[in-house]
Amino acid sequence: MRDQRLPLAYVCSLFSLLSCVHQAADLDIQLSLTLKPKSDMSNLVFGSVFTDHMLTIQWSATEGWQAPHIKPFGNLSLHPACSCLHYSVELFEGMKAYRGPDSKVRLFRPMLNMNRMAKSAERACLPAFDQSELLECIRRLVEIEQDWIPQSESVSLYIRPTFIGTEPSLGVKKPTNALLFVILSPVGSYFSTGIKPVSLWADPKYIRAWRGGTGDCKMGGNYGASICAQHEAVDNGCQQVLWLYGDDHQITEVGTMNIFLHWINEDGEEELATPPLDGIILPGITRQSILELTKNWGEFKVTERYLTMADLCCALKEQRIKEMFGAGTACVVCPVGRILYQGEVNFLFIKNKLIKFKIN
Amino acid sequence: MRDQRLPLAYVCSLFSLLSCVHQAADLDIQLSLTLKPKSDMSNLVFGSVFTDHMLTIQWSATEGWQAPHIKPFGNLSLHPACSCLHYSVELFEGMKAYRGPDSKVRLFRPMLNMNRMAKSAERACLPAFDQSELLECIRRLVEIEQDWIPQSESVSLYIRPTFIGTEPSLGVKKPTNALLFVILSPVGSYFSTGIKPVSLWADPKYIRAWRGGTGDCKMGGNYGASICAQHEAVDNGCQQVLWLYGDDHQITEVGTMNIFLHWINEDGEEELATPPLDGIILPGITRQSILELTKNWGEFKVTERYLTMADLCCALKEQRIKEMFGAGTACVVCPVGRILYQGEVNFLFIKNKLIKFKIN
Repeated sequence: MRDQRLPLAYVCSLFSLLSCVHQAADLDIQLSLTLKPKSDMSNLVFGSVFTDHMLTIQWSATEGWQAPHIKPFGNLSLHPACSCLHYSVELFEGMKAYRGPDSKVRLFRPMLNMNRMAKSAERACLPAFDQSELLECIRRLVEIEQDWIPQSESVSLYIRPTFIGTEPSLGVKKPTNALLFVILSPVGSYFSTGIKPVSLWADPKYIRAWRGGTGDCKMGGNYGASICAQHEAVDNGCQQVLWLYGDDHQITEVGTMNIFLHWINEDGEEELATPPLDGIILPGITRQSILELTKNWGEFKVTERYLTMADLCCALKEQRIKEMFGAGTACVVCPVGRILYQGEVNFLFIKNKLIKFKIN
Repeated sequence: MRDQRLPLAYVCSLFSLLSCVHQAADLDIQLSLTLKPKSDMSNLVFGSVFTDHMLTIQWSATEGWQAPHIKPFGNLSLHPACSCLHYSVELFEGMKAYRGPDSKVRLFRPMLNMNRMAKSAERACLPAFDQSELLECIRRLVEIEQDWIPQSESVSLYIRPTFIGTEPSLGVKKPTNALLFVILSPVGSYFSTGIKPVSLWADPKYIRAWRGGTGDCKMGGNYGASICAQHEAVDNGCQQVLWLYGDDHQITEVGTMNIFLHWINEDGEEELATPPLDGIILPGITRQSILELTKNWGEFKVTERYLTMADLCCALKEQRIKEMFGAGTACVVCPVGRILYQGEVNFLFIKNKLIKFKIN
């Protein structure tokens, strides 16, 4: 990639936090009487520190959406039969707010998150919501918490809208109660190693998503099922899972990110490629932004296409790989350093030389 | 099936509630000061009424398992970043306690549930637990709540052990905190239609589970993803989903149950068949019990084998189907009345005649 910080620069022009003047009409705001001390922003562990307030909006089948509340951050009180605790009737989004060099706070393409959240809700049988109204509530929450966003290139405010079924009875069914809540967390790098290249474990033992499933929605079930594979990656000396699919070991995603390959393709063309949105790929906002940006550059071919491990291994052998990276809101862009596949470690970058050797 | 009530009769000899004399040593019991009125047991909606108490046991990576508590049934207080609410780090079990004709209360093969729960926990990266100790805690809870179990063939006490990740931070990772809790619900029939034959929608649009996924564990994510398909089944005039898999439309499960086919197979043999435990099938306790019972009868061949829609359609055409039924703890055994597949409705039983006609 030409400039890995570009996604941030790109967005600044798209949505100004201060450009929204309307308040969700019924928003009830109860400010905390005591504010937490702002923690050391230079050493944040991803998602471990939360701001002073949260947004909650309740829904029921009989009464519809209730008035949204901004209130002090605190525990949720949930019926023990809640459908989110038993049947994973739950979904989330990941968004970020940045403070720019001009001191203004901006959200990164938030309507794309609202739109994806609505699609996840439909798949999860959770109720539809007004995307603009929700965004306005989030905007108000971020505005209240803006002191948590320092003027920094490395720190941003991670925004976590979450939508859970709170049906208080057992039986697998569409919930008659639901809760949408939003919490905020100032974050640095997603990985503790910072933006150093990550190592990947490519093994078809675990499959992240499949056609007819929920891999194209941001539903909780996609993530809990992946932790076991993540641990096996670590046991194999790697940091993340390169998710494969099908008998031909298609490359689909990496960890919780979309995957990109910048290479000289089999036809000798310089190409930036990422798997197509065929139902098993999460339609990432960062993915979409990178595709739009690079197409706009016009410097190389930009393609949504299938990529197999055979394609990758052949290109590695012939030194046709320029860069491989994951892309997502939490990590933004994350270069890949090496891949363990079928007992072989493939190095992607060591002083611009590709090295490959067998282990065992 | 020879006698659909047999699974209950079968179990009574396997586990007597009164046979356990040991109490989990550290169990702390706080009884409710006021007991709920016992509701009308003849008209119970599945999983909507709960008893007076619940069992909770907390775990943390630093302190391990805490003392178990039996306390008044009530809401859980959960950090809004809890991994169960975002990443579906959650699993459950379904068990039943029955009051027999001798007035004794018995659990149905509960160690099989404890064993399956331990396997689900391993897949979900939740901590291991002592299966016997947990069962003893559950036994104590059921003992306290035994007035909720009437002497009835139609009513039993559904037991819902639930195990959730309560890691209070974002980032997809193994939780450092977890909560195991058990709630109890007196239940009648799982389906509002009672034990009448159900209608099934067989369509490959939605896939319940896949190899490399979590279909063989009782993890929440398997269930939330299914509600959408269940609604499409209803939209198509059916009650449940017949889950298909692969290009050859293998029959895998039905709704939240294992599937059984009692038929004259392609070799002319009378056979009770159910799909094998190949990674995409939940290893049901009722499934296992039916296999063990019928093998013991020795009246027909009992096989774990693949069954495709082509097999079924051919057998329907040739009138070789004796019975098809779902099996699970909640419903016990549930006969299948008709199947909608590729625009055709296939009737399995109408006065012992098989009838098939086209819709549209």
